[in-house]
Amino acid sequence: MKIGLIGFGKAGKAVANVILQHPDFSLEWVLRSSKTMENISAKEFLGIDSSDPAQIFSQQNIDINTLFENHSVDFIIDFSKEEGIYTYGKAAVQKNVKIISAISHYNENEKDYLKELSKDGVVFWSPNITLGVNYLLFAASLLKNIAPEVDIEVIEEHFKAKAGISGTAMKIAETLDIETENINSVRAGGIVGKHEVIFGFPYQTVRLVHESISREAFGNGALFVAKNLINKENGLYNFEDILKPYFFNETKNN
Amino acid sequence: MKIGLIGFGKAGKAVANVILQHPDFSLEWVLRSSKTMENISAKEFLGIDSSDPAQIFSQQNIDINTLFENHSVDFIIDFSKEEGIYTYGKAAVQKNVKIISAISHYNENEKDYLKELSKDGVVFWSPNITLGVNYLLFAASLLKNIAPEVDIEVIEEHFKAKAGISGTAMKIAETLDIETENINSVRAGGIVGKHEVIFGFPYQTVRLVHESISREAFGNGALFVAKNLINKENGLYNFEDILKPYFFNETKNN
Amino acid sequence: MKIGLIGFGKAGKAVANVILQHPDFSLEWVLRSSKTMENISAKEFLGIDSSDPAQIFSQQNIDINTLFENHSVDFIIDFSKEEGIYTYGKAAVQKNVKIISAISHYNENEKDYLKELSKDGVVFWSPNITLGVNYLLFAASLLKNIAPEVDIEVIEEHFKAKAGISGTAMKIAETLDIETENINSVRAGGIVGKHEVIFGFPYQTVRLVHESISREAFGNGALFVAKNLINKENGLYNFEDILKPYFFNETKNN
Amino acid sequence: MKIGLIGFGKAGKAVANVILQHPDFSLEWVLRSSKTMENISAKEFLGIDSSDPAQIFSQQNIDINTLFENHSVDFIIDFSKEEGIYTYGKAAVQKNVKIISAISHYNENEKDYLKELSKDGVVFWSPNITLGVNYLLFAASLLKNIAPEVDIEVIEEHFKAKAGISGTAMKIAETLDIETENINSVRAGGIVGKHEVIFGFPYQTVRLVHESISREAFGNGALFVAKNLINKENGLYNFEDILKPYFFNETKNN
Repeated sequence: MKIGLIGFGKAGKAVANVILQHPDFSLEWVLRSSKTMENISAKEFLGIDSSDPAQIFSQQNIDINTLFENHSVDFIIDFSKEEGIYTYGKAAVQKNVKIISAISHYNENEKDYLKELSKDGVVFWSPNITLGVNYLLFAASLLKNIAPEVDIEVIEEHFKAKAGISGTAMKIAETLDIETENINSVRAGGIVGKHEVIFGFPYQTVRLVHESISREAFGNGALFVAKNLINKENGLYNFEDILKPYFFNETKNN
Repeated sequence: MKIGLIGFGKAGKAVANVILQHPDFSLEWVLRSSKTMENISAKEFLGIDSSDPAQIFSQQNIDINTLFENHSVDFIIDFSKEEGIYTYGKAAVQKNVKIISAISHYNENEKDYLKELSKDGVVFWSPNITLGVNYLLFAASLLKNIAPEVDIEVIEEHFKAKAGISGTAMKIAETLDIETENINSVRAGGIVGKHEVIFGFPYQTVRLVHESISREAFGNGALFVAKNLINKENGLYNFEDILKPYFFNETKNN
Repeated sequence: MKIGLIGFGKAGKAVANVILQHPDFSLEWVLRSSKTMENISAKEFLGIDSSDPAQIFSQQNIDINTLFENHSVDFIIDFSKEEGIYTYGKAAVQKNVKIISAISHYNENEKDYLKELSKDGVVFWSPNITLGVNYLLFAASLLKNIAPEVDIEVIEEHFKAKAGISGTAMKIAETLDIETENINSVRAGGIVGKHEVIFGFPYQTVRLVHESISREAFGNGALFVAKNLINKENGLYNFEDILKPYFFNETKNN
Repeated sequence: MKIGLIGFGKAGKAVANVILQHPDFSLEWVLRSSKTMENISAKEFLGIDSSDPAQIFSQQNIDINTLFENHSVDFIIDFSKEEGIYTYGKAAVQKNVKIISAISHYNENEKDYLKELSKDGVVFWSPNITLGVNYLLFAASLLKNIAPEVDIEVIEEHFKAKAGISGTAMKIAETLDIETENINSVRAGGIVGKHEVIFGFPYQTVRLVHESISREAFGNGALFVAKNLINKENGLYNFEDILKPYFFNETKNN
């Protein structure tokens, strides 16, 4: 499986790190806006020994269609910015390249554009592309469905400087239909990121906890998605769509 | 919904406690082997104000068919012993009374007998009838299915005197196909009961935690099962069978 | 060691439960305001087999001096109400009986009265008399002293119906000089009581956690205090005074 | 305060990272065995903007006395290997340079040598120089002293590949006088490092938890030690010696 990566910020670098070390995927190239890294490859930059090409290109110096033609890929993984999708979206769909976007927030314009693209291609979008957080959302939502009256509270812990409630906690609250006043935000020292959903029953308590160790989790999440998109028909997918079949398969086996 | 309770040990009392306080269920009677409590009702014994009859009978003094005829019920909930099923099984099925057994261990004989009974009636059996533990098993098994290579460890904590690995931890290990050496048993003070399943990914960790507060959780579990058995066809059910439809409904709604 | 217990509410009963089962202490009597239990002993009421007298008296029917004379004790343990101290305070000090008060809140009047009494007797007061919570306060305060700039947050979890921030969490905040906005109150289901103090450093996190299992912890705390008051001179003591010598002894041994 | 760092492995680099960014300390130089980094400074290597010199020297090319004379320091911080102490020990003491060693294991020979050096200088050694772990040991030992009969268990969690029980867990067990069978070792995914000491009382549980985020914690620990050694007399110190005065000061203030 050949991959083209859009964006090379903190998350992009961590994702490149994971792809470069994965035996089943090859990082063909990285496309970024700036020109400052054109002379080195992502593997040189990250100090990783790999046979993947991993060449770094700048949008300023290469046409996207030329890039796809000279360096064909199966997947685009996008960790750039909202507007990144306009750069490569149409070209990718035309070349039958599947799109995996991990952009945190899209405006309505971009969401509409994704829908449009998905008529002619496989398009996936998840604002938090880690397996753990998406599993947490899925499993929590299942328990809420089983026990709709249960008391639910969320504790999210992050480093001192993080402002506001975390996006993931907001997503959990939205998914479980609880108030933001039931989100408890702890800010202390260098905590990387922890989310805990507490389900309080009268005589027992269930807790679902996700702890982040590093941004490389985004890379594993993106590759997990890639594997699961291989045989998908054209359409727009989110992480829940990817997780559901695992449940159905599981029930069949029992 | 009218309930007949078999057994009045520690768990049986806690379950009676929950049924007596639930508006949708009525505790019609309790059947136990000993004769020592025949003169008081379960509600008097527990000091609970309730309009349920809750009369305590002894197997030594009443015929099971007479009991069913004079004090009809919709459900039997069994917290007695392995051999309890032979006392009421046949009579219950004949009277169209659904059976909910929460016996911890059955021998093959009893398992066969349950299967036999389930041809003509609704029969449910769960060795740990709490909602929380069964949800945990279900959700953990789902994550294992999604990420079969993930490292899994179990921590179970109980009071100092508890001997051996907990039955619930053994069940978790069996369900997730991990070795008992990956179960860590903590025995300290008066800890009521805690089970934690740790899923270790390279860059993130997911934890599913169940904490017991009191035995009344068995009562809520049994009533949850009762509600979900109301429209079931004849057959033998376990807790997973009860939980699955919640998932399917959930997916339909999205 | 002979003990007289003042008060027989939920906490008082749990404390009686512990004293009755402790080999080194004897529950001589319980004094309460109501007359409704005068005909049975605390051990009969609680169903505990013990050789302690444990007779229940009502303030309405017995004079406190008569009580002390006919049923002498070494300690008073008070789990009644604010004004309880006025009933027995003076008489206790005159008879050389040590006072252990576990009343949650005292007004200035009562605090002054305690000070007055402590001139002529050993008087101890702790609003939360569990060993665990007091250790937590002590250990947390030590870490704050070592690392005054560390980020501190408190999470306290209790059953759904508990209103307001817990008194223990307020005491922690006061002791550590942090704002109440850094206390996160989780209310869910039947959680008995959990307090967690999080110390966030840039590259590590320290957590001190206390979990309550049952009110009997008050009994063990009170007896721990009693043991440690045996050789104390007249004066007013709190739980920190009781804990400090353990530290000093420890350092001597190393 | 001027610092010379011995060793520039993973821990040494993390420590340099912390010193370079601290306003009160200056990293004068790094001394390592290999010659491969002599041409760049530690700040260039780490990409940190700092006014500290931070020059990297190799033992193969510079005499230790010359180094001390041309680049005077107040402290040596040693993150190299067991035998490192022989390189700089005597010279440091002669120049009145305080020694802070964070070597994990020393043989008897080195321990004797430290004692010898400490007759003429300030010498500190801690095999785990983080503030958090040392506080944990201290606070746990205090609780054990208060409640010698309490049940104690340790859970330590690390990444899958870590072999054997962690050194810190062994140290905890030794300090608290518990058996290694009461240490529960969890190995899963990429967990950086977590140690939890569980104190199980009959009616309550106390947990002390330390979580590592990154090796930079060693740097903060070393600088904390340095600050506290400034006015110390000649002698051999460990981390407990550094922590104790905080307790005594605290009690004085109350």
